[in-house]
Amino acid sequence: MGRPRTIWWETPDTVGVIDQTRLPHDHVVAEWRTLDDACQGISSMQVRGAPLIGVAAAHGMALAVRADPVDLDGAAGRLAATRPTAVNLRWALDRVTAVLADTSPEERWTVAHHLATTMADDDVAACRRIGDAGVDLLADVHARTGRPVQVMTHCNAGRLACVEWGTATAPIYVAHEQGVPVHVWVSETRPRNQGAALTTWELAEAGVPSTLVVDNAAGHLLRAGAVDLVLVGADRIAANGDVANKVGTSLKAIAARHHGVPFVVAAPWSTVDPACPDGDAVPIEERDTAEVLELAGTPTAPPGTAARNWAFDVTAADLVDRYLTDVGAFDLDGLLGALQR
Amino acid sequence: MGRPRTIWWETPDTVGVIDQTRLPHDHVVAEWRTLDDACQGISSMQVRGAPLIGVAAAHGMALAVRADPVDLDGAAGRLAATRPTAVNLRWALDRVTAVLADTSPEERWTVAHHLATTMADDDVAACRRIGDAGVDLLADVHARTGRPVQVMTHCNAGRLACVEWGTATAPIYVAHEQGVPVHVWVSETRPRNQGAALTTWELAEAGVPSTLVVDNAAGHLLRAGAVDLVLVGADRIAANGDVANKVGTSLKAIAARHHGVPFVVAAPWSTVDPACPDGDAVPIEERDTAEVLELAGTPTAPPGTAARNWAFDVTAADLVDRYLTDVGAFDLDGLLGALQR
Repeated sequence: MGRPRTIWWETPDTVGVIDQTRLPHDHVVAEWRTLDDACQGISSMQVRGAPLIGVAAAHGMALAVRADPVDLDGAAGRLAATRPTAVNLRWALDRVTAVLADTSPEERWTVAHHLATTMADDDVAACRRIGDAGVDLLADVHARTGRPVQVMTHCNAGRLACVEWGTATAPIYVAHEQGVPVHVWVSETRPRNQGAALTTWELAEAGVPSTLVVDNAAGHLLRAGAVDLVLVGADRIAANGDVANKVGTSLKAIAARHHGVPFVVAAPWSTVDPACPDGDAVPIEERDTAEVLELAGTPTAPPGTAARNWAFDVTAADLVDRYLTDVGAFDLDGLLGALQR
Repeated sequence: MGRPRTIWWETPDTVGVIDQTRLPHDHVVAEWRTLDDACQGISSMQVRGAPLIGVAAAHGMALAVRADPVDLDGAAGRLAATRPTAVNLRWALDRVTAVLADTSPEERWTVAHHLATTMADDDVAACRRIGDAGVDLLADVHARTGRPVQVMTHCNAGRLACVEWGTATAPIYVAHEQGVPVHVWVSETRPRNQGAALTTWELAEAGVPSTLVVDNAAGHLLRAGAVDLVLVGADRIAANGDVANKVGTSLKAIAARHHGVPFVVAAPWSTVDPACPDGDAVPIEERDTAEVLELAGTPTAPPGTAARNWAFDVTAADLVDRYLTDVGAFDLDGLLGALQR
């Protein structure tokens, strides 16, 4: 499909990223020249989405070793601290650090540069395989009903969360490519509105019709029979199949089960964390309460109001009907079996 | 407790209301002198909340007959059209119209003025009885646990939705009055943010601690065991016990049941609509999509994004553990039995 990527080498030693904090109003490229730039870019969510965070961290490591080829652990530690929940971040840093530890300091910049590019390419291929693993779910609905497939998603697990294709959006884009009509219900995804700002934007760019609703509307849509399939990404999948994803995901999963609508999680296999026994072991990042207390910079609550701002929640494994990964589609038993191998 | 009321006669022929569109930043009184003012005030949500809408409509009828004591149906029709979902609006208009139809045109202004005041007084008394019907639910949790009772609510079913006391908040205020410690998880309640703007404000005024969260956080809080009780209001209760309330309510109800947390609906008996067989028969108001597409006047989505904006949803009767009304507390069987009588 050749969608533009979300991260690339702008010059031989400068990383370019789509600055997602500026979407959908401005399509701006941010340039990272240093480890500081990369850390700042990840923590401020210029790039966000578990897969892209991992690839971005690899690029950050490359920028780090260009300036200081010796202190790998220091650089990896700083990058790891930017977003505590996403396991892909650690996975990417571990992979890069392991390779660089076996490389002489003089060669580290070249190797790290190449590795970051390879990881971006791998993400594109993995997301395409996720799309291939899930496209039948959508095609089957269309074949059965003869009308556009109604997908509900949450947050942005789209190409903007990855390098290209996306995770939850990959089956949608592959279906669209194959002529299966799809309509997506996009939840705005408070508090950071990634659905409103990002998912609507990238679906429109891809020519896939969508309708924006508030997060609260999911129950109404599911009760009304307006949803064939709930399709979300994942920030971490525990060894028992529990899924940590953007806060609000579990409400959609519970309501989908209540109404008999399939709930499907799409993520690269690197999202599965065998070291994490279950959802209770996933650290849930808490972010600045200003995200809750303000809308577009305007306070909504009285001065002095207390707030909490968990960025993720955990969906129990038994609520997941299907896991779509780059190594295939699984039900829970299949996922647990694949983890044993 | 003597909380200030939300609607009153500011002068003998002027209605004063707290303009809730200005809260929490400005505490401003809006004055209604005409039927037009009342219709505009209700549709623009200067006053909102099912019980208050009914009382406000009665005041609007008084203003109407002061100018034109003859055309009762015209005035009632205009007021009924301001908010289609709330049954209290129709109930109040039917009551006022029936009384005025039996009154000579010369006396209608005096009678309507008095009736509006009586309906406000009745609302205060009814809400207090709702509080008395529900306070044991909170006191029992505190007696069992010895810690503050953790209540989750949705939208604003507080005194700002009524004349005083509120519906879902009445048990909280009565518990607070009786020395039972309570903490309230307030959902911001997109798209109009009544939780953030109104519920936090009135709880703070009453000295009840609260914490604001996004609507998406309910699943995390319920899974974490941070909620003892979900307590919401209702805009209409169908004859089978289905509950129409602010959009997002059903997600909380389904998730509460999933996690074994009681889900309790508090509403005056006038909210029960015997003529409405079930939730599917409740008309669900759709509001301006600008409420979804903008945050505090700033667009969040790309230009041209499609949106839908349902203001309410339906919670199935079997998800409701308790109905708290001004004529007592009921489970579903009790409610259905009371409807037979």
